[in-house]
Amino acid sequence: MKAERGSNQHLPALLVIFGGTGDLARRKLLPALYNLLCDGLLPEHFAVVAAGRREKTTEQYRSEVFTAITAYSRNAVTAENWRIFQPLIHYVRLDFLDVAGYARLHSILEGIDRRHATAGNRIFYLAVAPEYFEPIVQGLRDQQDPAECRGWKRLVIEKPFGRDLQSAVRLNDKLSAVFSENNIYRIDHYLGKEMIQNIMVLRFCNSVFEAVWSNKYIDNIQILLSEQAGIGSRGGYYETAGAMRDMVQNHILQTLSLVAMDPPVSLQPDAIRSEKLKVIQALEVFTPAMVAENVIFGQYDQGMVKDQQVKAYRQEDKVAADSVTETFVAMKLYIQNFRWSGTPFYLRTGKRLGSSEAKIVIQFKPLPPVLYLRKQPLEQPNALMIKIQPEVGVCFQFSTKNFNSKEEIVSARMDTGNVSSSNGNTPEAYERLIVDILRGDTTLFSRWDEVEASWAFVDRLITGRRLQSFPNYAAGSMGPAQADELIRRDGRKWWD
Amino acid sequence: MKAERGSNQHLPALLVIFGGTGDLARRKLLPALYNLLCDGLLPEHFAVVAAGRREKTTEQYRSEVFTAITAYSRNAVTAENWRIFQPLIHYVRLDFLDVAGYARLHSILEGIDRRHATAGNRIFYLAVAPEYFEPIVQGLRDQQDPAECRGWKRLVIEKPFGRDLQSAVRLNDKLSAVFSENNIYRIDHYLGKEMIQNIMVLRFCNSVFEAVWSNKYIDNIQILLSEQAGIGSRGGYYETAGAMRDMVQNHILQTLSLVAMDPPVSLQPDAIRSEKLKVIQALEVFTPAMVAENVIFGQYDQGMVKDQQVKAYRQEDKVAADSVTETFVAMKLYIQNFRWSGTPFYLRTGKRLGSSEAKIVIQFKPLPPVLYLRKQPLEQPNALMIKIQPEVGVCFQFSTKNFNSKEEIVSARMDTGNVSSSNGNTPEAYERLIVDILRGDTTLFSRWDEVEASWAFVDRLITGRRLQSFPNYAAGSMGPAQADELIRRDGRKWWD
Repeated sequence: MKAERGSNQHLPALLVIFGGTGDLARRKLLPALYNLLCDGLLPEHFAVVAAGRREKTTEQYRSEVFTAITAYSRNAVTAENWRIFQPLIHYVRLDFLDVAGYARLHSILEGIDRRHATAGNRIFYLAVAPEYFEPIVQGLRDQQDPAECRGWKRLVIEKPFGRDLQSAVRLNDKLSAVFSENNIYRIDHYLGKEMIQNIMVLRFCNSVFEAVWSNKYIDNIQILLSEQAGIGSRGGYYETAGAMRDMVQNHILQTLSLVAMDPPVSLQPDAIRSEKLKVIQALEVFTPAMVAENVIFGQYDQGMVKDQQVKAYRQEDKVAADSVTETFVAMKLYIQNFRWSGTPFYLRTGKRLGSSEAKIVIQFKPLPPVLYLRKQPLEQPNALMIKIQPEVGVCFQFSTKNFNSKEEIVSARMDTGNVSSSNGNTPEAYERLIVDILRGDTTLFSRWDEVEASWAFVDRLITGRRLQSFPNYAAGSMGPAQADELIRRDGRKWWD
Repeated sequence: MKAERGSNQHLPALLVIFGGTGDLARRKLLPALYNLLCDGLLPEHFAVVAAGRREKTTEQYRSEVFTAITAYSRNAVTAENWRIFQPLIHYVRLDFLDVAGYARLHSILEGIDRRHATAGNRIFYLAVAPEYFEPIVQGLRDQQDPAECRGWKRLVIEKPFGRDLQSAVRLNDKLSAVFSENNIYRIDHYLGKEMIQNIMVLRFCNSVFEAVWSNKYIDNIQILLSEQAGIGSRGGYYETAGAMRDMVQNHILQTLSLVAMDPPVSLQPDAIRSEKLKVIQALEVFTPAMVAENVIFGQYDQGMVKDQQVKAYRQEDKVAADSVTETFVAMKLYIQNFRWSGTPFYLRTGKRLGSSEAKIVIQFKPLPPVLYLRKQPLEQPNALMIKIQPEVGVCFQFSTKNFNSKEEIVSARMDTGNVSSSNGNTPEAYERLIVDILRGDTTLFSRWDEVEASWAFVDRLITGRRLQSFPNYAAGSMGPAQADELIRRDGRKWWD
């Protein structure tokens, strides 16, 4: 089935991937492009230029792309589709720090643009390490010809967008000097996930959910983003980041905003992003005392994950033997507005945990101790579970009579099962995001003021942190004992 | 698994079934008793006396019971259980109209009572045609010894409880002269169904459902009780009843009360029945003009049901060739109280329809035309479906993103699947009701004032009826076209 994604999908475009030989390009971007081709979602006039530091020919690169999409694409690679896909791909050698290289790149792009009739529309995708963000943007700036006004130029930038408020401001200043805010696509691949996009639909297309979506009916909301994986080969980056910068500042706060925002005035990207921003702005201002009370940092020790003995974080490659970088964060926070005052949000994310999953649980308030609950409360409250990954679906937990007994009340679940497209193969996050970039739809990308507010919030948590004794949780567990205590002291528990 | 149904289940009792050779006894009561034995729910001291007009020995009757329970019991008949069950059963010949017979019955019961140590506790179950209700109760009265106060005496009476308000009052006067109100069990086997009992649990043990259970959130409520069966051999009775008396006065109005009642002050039977009564009392008072506007009567013509050609109602055995008895009723009504004012209830029941099912659908209000609904409304609203039979379960219809497309919103369902006991074999209605009679729990039986109010309501519909041209629907359809028009004119439709 050819899905229709929008009306602007056929705008011509030339996609330039900086870091075209890297992991992200190989595993995600190129397979996503191939899948878009299969689904009829690539513009008629389209080309890809991969810019990388290694010397290789376009022919060599194409053969690498073939290997990559064969391995990572959700669609099988057919001869017919490859015949169409292959000629769209070009390779250009570029040393990102070599100022002179950008002139050469520019002229190559001009040539490819003419050949593929891409009308001067350019997407510059920075799939590189953060230290190259500024040099690349600077290089692009130097080649800008103010007289040339043919087509649009869009910049796509992967996280991390800075490592604190100050560095993010600095980076943004550099980008803004070359690209206007509405042409900067700060990508958070997490927002491309189907169920994340579904949060707004669930909230605003269901009268029942809409009616109960507030502190009047909701007891607490939990957001979990757990990974069984460790940091792998990313020790160098991770040591400078930690879970707070790597996950909370972006994925977790973005998810929180979607769950908690007031209804936007329209579906225009800026209307939505303005409401999301208001959520971050309404977060409590954490003092160091509040951090100590409500934020738990953790770092994994060795342990068992999926029946495999795994290393402690401090034993990982490129990690200091006395590292105090956190690989786990659990926190409780309040949103100080009319909708959410008094309803705590419990957030939790970490590496080397006992499960790999992402979900949101909306736990509803308990009933008064009357009628069936006069003698004892229900074992389980009403709860709406939004399963993001690996399972994708919605589930409602409710109470019902146990049909084996006279009066016993038990908990049951209504479930959609795994919601997925007809072939069981939901489009992946990057496909959706690339289509949005092609269409110029910024809804699923973070606006600068959102990023700025998130960093301001996260900075206070990082600077307010009191160093704990690390490591403090075994790999394969659900984090340090303090994280359980954080929620248990409120008479609640994590939905695991 | 031996289910625990309550603490009083071991009270001794002698159950006298008037009409012990009839269909109800054979197909329902005796199999239910056998199943209760299997589940360990029969009192230790228990006996059954079947009173019938035919001459036969207890031995003969027991052999008939064996055949009946083998055919109709949900549990297989084992030699071990039959060895326990068989001696509990006795047969007594009784001409229900012969006054002298009751003295003989009385002395036989006394003997069996002594032998089985049933402590004088008696349940008189009237599984006979309505014309025998009064003679039997009169016969029992004549044998009452005021000096004898050993044990309790309970009367169980099957529908129809009268055929209009006047006859119901008369019948009730007769019964009340012999049994006090709290010893009269007006059985509505429909209330014994698991999912009907579950209505209160769903409503009062789920904070989300409780929060939205009113005219503020609910657009309309539909109750459907459809049968593919015709009237079979019951033409004689049915000609004097019709769907209004046979289904609406009891099953439909009882279900309506459970769905619509305000929370009772406790789970005491009378607290619940008082709230149910208030619903019936709050029903609109139908004038003939309102009946013409809001009540559709139907009678089936010949047609196809389950690929079989079936007769018209007027061709059925013991039915007049020009009968105007209705085999179908659809109606719209309002409950005039704070909770339900403005929310219509659409009720529908009939024979020879296209489906055999019973369900309640709570349809929630549409959302305002904003955000995703600015351009077009949702195809489907939120709806909670309570499936009573043949499927037993709960299902919530909601809106979600279609994961194949960018913005399309589609309707999806969360479902419990078929909720049933672990062996897939939920206890049948009569089992539950017999246990309740043994325990003296009157919750699931209609109190006189409920019956009285129901008849008062139904009488106005029957007397206000303007004769329509019958037959007006084909067997196998979902009733007359006017029934569809009844709801279509409100911009709604039946949930089929």
